[in-house]
Amino acid sequence: MHDIVIRDGLCFIEGKFIECSIGVDGNKITHVAKEVEGGEIEIDAYGCIVMPGCFNAHTHAAMTLMRGYAEGLPLREWLEKIWELEARLDDEAVYWGTMLACVEMLKSGVTAFSDMYIHMHAVAEAVGETGMRAVLGYGMADRGDEERAKKELEIGVDFAEKWNGSFEGRITTMLTPHAPYTCSPEFLRKVAEISREKDLLKHIHLSETLWEVKETKKKFGKRPVEFLDSLSFLDSNTVLAHAVWLSDKEMKILAERGASVAHCPTSNLKLSSGIAKVAELIEIGINVSIGTDGAASNNMLSVLSDARIGALLQNLRGKSLNPVQWLKMATENGYKAYKLNGGRIAEGYLADIAVFGKTCRNSPMHNPAAMLFVENQAIHVLVDGVLVMEDGILVNVEEDKVIEKAENAAQKLLEG
Amino acid sequence: MHDIVIRDGLCFIEGKFIECSIGVDGNKITHVAKEVEGGEIEIDAYGCIVMPGCFNAHTHAAMTLMRGYAEGLPLREWLEKIWELEARLDDEAVYWGTMLACVEMLKSGVTAFSDMYIHMHAVAEAVGETGMRAVLGYGMADRGDEERAKKELEIGVDFAEKWNGSFEGRITTMLTPHAPYTCSPEFLRKVAEISREKDLLKHIHLSETLWEVKETKKKFGKRPVEFLDSLSFLDSNTVLAHAVWLSDKEMKILAERGASVAHCPTSNLKLSSGIAKVAELIEIGINVSIGTDGAASNNMLSVLSDARIGALLQNLRGKSLNPVQWLKMATENGYKAYKLNGGRIAEGYLADIAVFGKTCRNSPMHNPAAMLFVENQAIHVLVDGVLVMEDGILVNVEEDKVIEKAENAAQKLLEG
Repeated sequence: MHDIVIRDGLCFIEGKFIECSIGVDGNKITHVAKEVEGGEIEIDAYGCIVMPGCFNAHTHAAMTLMRGYAEGLPLREWLEKIWELEARLDDEAVYWGTMLACVEMLKSGVTAFSDMYIHMHAVAEAVGETGMRAVLGYGMADRGDEERAKKELEIGVDFAEKWNGSFEGRITTMLTPHAPYTCSPEFLRKVAEISREKDLLKHIHLSETLWEVKETKKKFGKRPVEFLDSLSFLDSNTVLAHAVWLSDKEMKILAERGASVAHCPTSNLKLSSGIAKVAELIEIGINVSIGTDGAASNNMLSVLSDARIGALLQNLRGKSLNPVQWLKMATENGYKAYKLNGGRIAEGYLADIAVFGKTCRNSPMHNPAAMLFVENQAIHVLVDGVLVMEDGILVNVEEDKVIEKAENAAQKLLEG
Repeated sequence: MHDIVIRDGLCFIEGKFIECSIGVDGNKITHVAKEVEGGEIEIDAYGCIVMPGCFNAHTHAAMTLMRGYAEGLPLREWLEKIWELEARLDDEAVYWGTMLACVEMLKSGVTAFSDMYIHMHAVAEAVGETGMRAVLGYGMADRGDEERAKKELEIGVDFAEKWNGSFEGRITTMLTPHAPYTCSPEFLRKVAEISREKDLLKHIHLSETLWEVKETKKKFGKRPVEFLDSLSFLDSNTVLAHAVWLSDKEMKILAERGASVAHCPTSNLKLSSGIAKVAELIEIGINVSIGTDGAASNNMLSVLSDARIGALLQNLRGKSLNPVQWLKMATENGYKAYKLNGGRIAEGYLADIAVFGKTCRNSPMHNPAAMLFVENQAIHVLVDGVLVMEDGILVNVEEDKVIEKAENAAQKLLEG
């Protein structure tokens, strides 16, 4: 008898869709085969698609509060407007903003996410409550100020040490300096040192805009990846968000160092940043995952919707990739980037699973992989072996209450 | 007492969102104000967004049957694969493919669409049955063969005359030659003549790819718009699908002739065609509407999803437009292009209306216009003053049966 059984679904296994059943015990997938014994909980997935949960590899969850705010501005001007609001955030606002993000992500089949923000203990509490998995870091920026550098690093390291492994291991932590244009070289070097000492992941915004590339070259005589590499920042514990404007040489460096990329196609369009060379990144062997970025620069938190837009943009470039490659970017590549044993329907892997029904949007099913991008609302979701959404209803939170609380927090934020 | 009352919704009126109630009598909106008397049918829209229905200004509805087929190919190669399947279509297949398209469109808040395809009487029957509104034309292509030209024109004109005004006026008709690279100049000139004689709309694919521009220049010494203009084809009764590769001179010609454009951003990405200069088209005064194109080159039929992608692409070009402009393109500009008195919440206009609920995806509501692009599943839909979807359930058709029938038709198509 398994704890949970998901029966007779069309399962995404090793890049193929196979009719199959899944047994879950504790927080792991323990059985994948045509036949399966009974489960304490039985989920009938006949006619449904069963996917490993999506991993949102770059977001700022609480920015749901600013969804639709400051529309139509390029990154630099947009950031000025956003920073004004962020200065007013408090624990409660961040908590409810993150709760809303978790609700939206679970309903979109996202089981785990990487978050870099402020008031991070409030983020952790929300993740704990909703039942999601997350890799969390406090967004540090010293802006060249030594005093500030010390303080930021202290908050960042304290958060990482305190919350790592919390909520039965659903939360892991990382060090997250904001970007090369908001952190000094000394600060970035120090972060890299500590991450090696303490074996912590690092996550940073990099090469998002052409402005950033020009600025980095002007200030440091190097392109962003070369610059980070000169600070010994890049290794297989590093995830770079965006990575839009890379030279061939920079791609080679990333491949050699084993760093991962969190590709954010929608945010890069919305803020006029550009189109990342995903086909080339994959060709050279870099692990590419997908991030929505914050809701304010997207306006959704659906990894599958971003995979759709990412795929369309590579088509535009004449560099079409297979839908199965996009599904892997949306799932296992995210888990891999953040060193989690999930993102695959296979024995021994974390039981983070999303079930999608058959609808008018994904029929007929010539090509199930391509269909996932158009019907991106899950019906059942498991995280860490626990059923957190059943028949579209969240188990641990009241959706209406979360929406109301988040609306109130957003209202307060705007009023100042 | 009104036939139908939609009470207390946040209504999109003259580019603003206003809390308001709507009275409907017969097939028209007869009352728009804060207060309203009772209705035979009462729809409580408190907390919901109430929009004029979207108009899908360019599609081939029955191509739902090929959704996800031939993924990842550029237009020319993709067409070869698709034409192979289309040769096998029969009335029944087109009927069920169109039924599935209508179901998907209604659920996405689309109340009307423009369709150019084959077996058009089967399309008309499906439109009639689902309760949608449509402007239909038989897709004609003479390929330079005189015999064929005569036959094609006969089918096209017969269809247009027979079905114009059918189903209480929900169906209107047009002449739809496929494209300048599949129709001879003589044929296009003849179509233009007949359309003037009979006061019929014309709809054609134009300037979709750079290949087409080069080919037209090579064969006729003119760019596509100049070429059509030299055949007296362009006037205010003309809607051009795609219009991606236009010179300044071509845009000027279109503006002078009063022709409309059906912008198809997703299809243009998927088939590697390019990004249309929407900001410039609007700037010069051209009426721009939005089309999904067929499901096989999208893979959705959601006009709002296409508006979202269109908006993101103009942002990428540094030509950001206001979300309200995109909503107008998604609604009233489509009705305007096809000479229908709809697409606005205003007295005297056709009662084609879509109601969207508040969800985790569109909260908080700082900017309702921007939110419509992310939550694109309607809950109630009226077409021609009739409630055709209530609480997400279609009134006239059984969704599950349509999906099953369309799946069977698609299966038969692939098997040959």
